[in-house]
Amino acid sequence: MENDLLRWFRATLPSHKQLLLGAGDDAAILKLTDGTQLVATTDMLMDGVDFRVSEHDPAEIGHKALAVNLSDLAAMAARPVAALVSLCLPRSGGEALAKELYSGLLSTAAQYNMAIAGGDTNSWDGPLVISITALGEVQPGREWRRSGARPGDRILVTGDFGGSILGWHLMFQPLVEQALWLAEHLSVHAAIDVSDGLSLDLARLAEASGVGACIHLERVPISYHARLLASQRDDGVTPLEHALGDGEDFQLILAADGAEVDRFFAEHPQWKERLTSIGRFSAIQGLWSVQGAELTPLAPRGWEHRLDP
Amino acid sequence: MENDLLRWFRATLPSHKQLLLGAGDDAAILKLTDGTQLVATTDMLMDGVDFRVSEHDPAEIGHKALAVNLSDLAAMAARPVAALVSLCLPRSGGEALAKELYSGLLSTAAQYNMAIAGGDTNSWDGPLVISITALGEVQPGREWRRSGARPGDRILVTGDFGGSILGWHLMFQPLVEQALWLAEHLSVHAAIDVSDGLSLDLARLAEASGVGACIHLERVPISYHARLLASQRDDGVTPLEHALGDGEDFQLILAADGAEVDRFFAEHPQWKERLTSIGRFSAIQGLWSVQGAELTPLAPRGWEHRLDP
Repeated sequence: MENDLLRWFRATLPSHKQLLLGAGDDAAILKLTDGTQLVATTDMLMDGVDFRVSEHDPAEIGHKALAVNLSDLAAMAARPVAALVSLCLPRSGGEALAKELYSGLLSTAAQYNMAIAGGDTNSWDGPLVISITALGEVQPGREWRRSGARPGDRILVTGDFGGSILGWHLMFQPLVEQALWLAEHLSVHAAIDVSDGLSLDLARLAEASGVGACIHLERVPISYHARLLASQRDDGVTPLEHALGDGEDFQLILAADGAEVDRFFAEHPQWKERLTSIGRFSAIQGLWSVQGAELTPLAPRGWEHRLDP
Repeated sequence: MENDLLRWFRATLPSHKQLLLGAGDDAAILKLTDGTQLVATTDMLMDGVDFRVSEHDPAEIGHKALAVNLSDLAAMAARPVAALVSLCLPRSGGEALAKELYSGLLSTAAQYNMAIAGGDTNSWDGPLVISITALGEVQPGREWRRSGARPGDRILVTGDFGGSILGWHLMFQPLVEQALWLAEHLSVHAAIDVSDGLSLDLARLAEASGVGACIHLERVPISYHARLLASQRDDGVTPLEHALGDGEDFQLILAADGAEVDRFFAEHPQWKERLTSIGRFSAIQGLWSVQGAELTPLAPRGWEHRLDP
C-alpha cells in the first residue's frame, strides 16, 4: 500500500511556480513574492502509534511533536520561525492534557526561538492526535536538499545510532544549531535527518541524488542504547543492526566532497568527534557494505510506516 | 472547559518578534526577515465531528478541509500560496480514501492557485483525521484583522446565513477572490469569517475591537436553507435564529466607515446585491438588537466547540 500511494502522490501532485521543492524531501521550499525562501514541514503524531499517553509524560510528547518537525528543518539547514499546533484531545481529561502537552512544546519552542502562531484545538471520543506544521527560513541557494550528493562524496553522520526506543526517541534534541553552524562552515551537497533508520534514510538520500552509497560497517557509530537493547533482547539482532535500522535517532546524514571534509576537519578539529565519515557515495546505484575492495548489497532497513506525499 | 483553556492559551502563549499577530484572529501573521508578511492558519477536521466518512463523498471532505483554511485566509485578505496536508487514515480502505480526499483537495487547490507543499500521511486503527495548514501572503499594513472596528462603522455581511447543514457546509466556496477584490476597493477596518455562527462571530469581532455591535434583525439575510430547515424541523427555531446561530456559512463580516461604504456602493452598484449592511458597531459593548431607538441584548449563538489557541 505505502509505495503505491507514494507513487500516486508523486505522479499526481502538480508543480506550482512558487513551490521550489515539494513532496519527497524533508521539507518543502516555497519562494514568496519578494524572493524569500520559506521552508515548511508537517508531522502528525498519534497516541498508540508514535507515543502512549498512558505511559509517557505529556510534556515529553509535546516536545517530541515539535522536535520531529525541527529535525526536518535542520535537515534543510533552515532557521526555525514558527509552528502551528493542531490537537484532537480525548474528551476525558483533555484540558489538563492540553496544558501539559503545551508545557513541553512551549519550552522547546522557546529553546529554538520559535513563535507559536496559533492552531486548532478540538475534543473528540478518539485518542490524542497532534499535528504540527513548522516554518523556517533559508537564504536562496543555501538550503540542503536530499538530491545533491555526488559520486565520491563522503557519507558523514552526526552522533550515534540505534536503540532510541529505550528513551531518546521522546526527548531527543533536534540538531538545528549544529545544522545552521555547519551550513556556514562546510560545503554540504545533500542532507537528510534519520527519522526512520540510518540505512533506510541513507538509501533515500542516495536515491534522490541518483547515486549509490557504500558503507564501511565497522565505522558506523553504535549508540550505548543499541548495545543495551541487543543485550536485553534475546532475538539475535546485533547492535550494528539496531544502529542501521532502528530509526528515531534524529541525527543527520550529510554528503560532502572529500577534500572539503579534510579542510573542514583541519580547521575545526573539535568536529572530528562529532562527525563520522562512514563511507562514500558511488556511481553504482544501491546501498552497499564495503570490506576492502569488495561490495556486498545491503538491504535498507527501518520504519516504512510513513506515507509522506 | 473551552473558555478556561482559551484564557490559558492567551495568558501562556508568549510573544515573538516575528509574530505580528498570533492567537485569537482568523490566522496568524509572521514577519519574515526581509519584511514579507506570511499569513498562516490551520484547521483539523475529524470523522464523526466535522463530517461522516460513511455519509459524505470523500472528495467533498477533502474540499472542505482545504476550504475552511481558505476562508480564514480570505478573512485576512491574504492571497493563498500553499497548503500542507496531514492525514490519519483508517487501516481498512485507507489508500482508496486518501486518493478520493486528494482528488477533491487538489481540485480546490488548483482553483485557488495554491501549491500542495507536502504533508504527512499515516495509518492507524482510529477514524479519519485531516489536518491542513494553509499559507498566504499579504502586503504589510493591508491585512484585515478582527480588532479594527470603530464605533459608528457599518456591519457589512456577504451572502446569506443559516441552514448550512442541509448541504452547503461541505461544498461552500471560500470568498478568497471577493476578499482580495474588496481589499483593493473598500477601506475595511476589520473582518472575520463566519465559521461558528453570524451572531457569535460578530460578537468575537466586536470584542476583539473593543466595541459593541447593534444589529437590525430585519436586515439579516436569511438563506433559503435556513427557511427550509425551520420548516422541516418542528422545534420552534425560526429561520432568523438559524441565520444568527447555525455556523459554517463561511461568509465574511466586515467593518467599514459609513461614508466609505456609501462611496463604494455609488462606485460599484453591483455590490449592493452582494454586501448587506445589517447594523453598526457602537461604543456600547456587547451584542444588541436594534428596533427604532431601542436596544435589546442579543445572546451570541453558534458552535462553541472550537478551542483555538
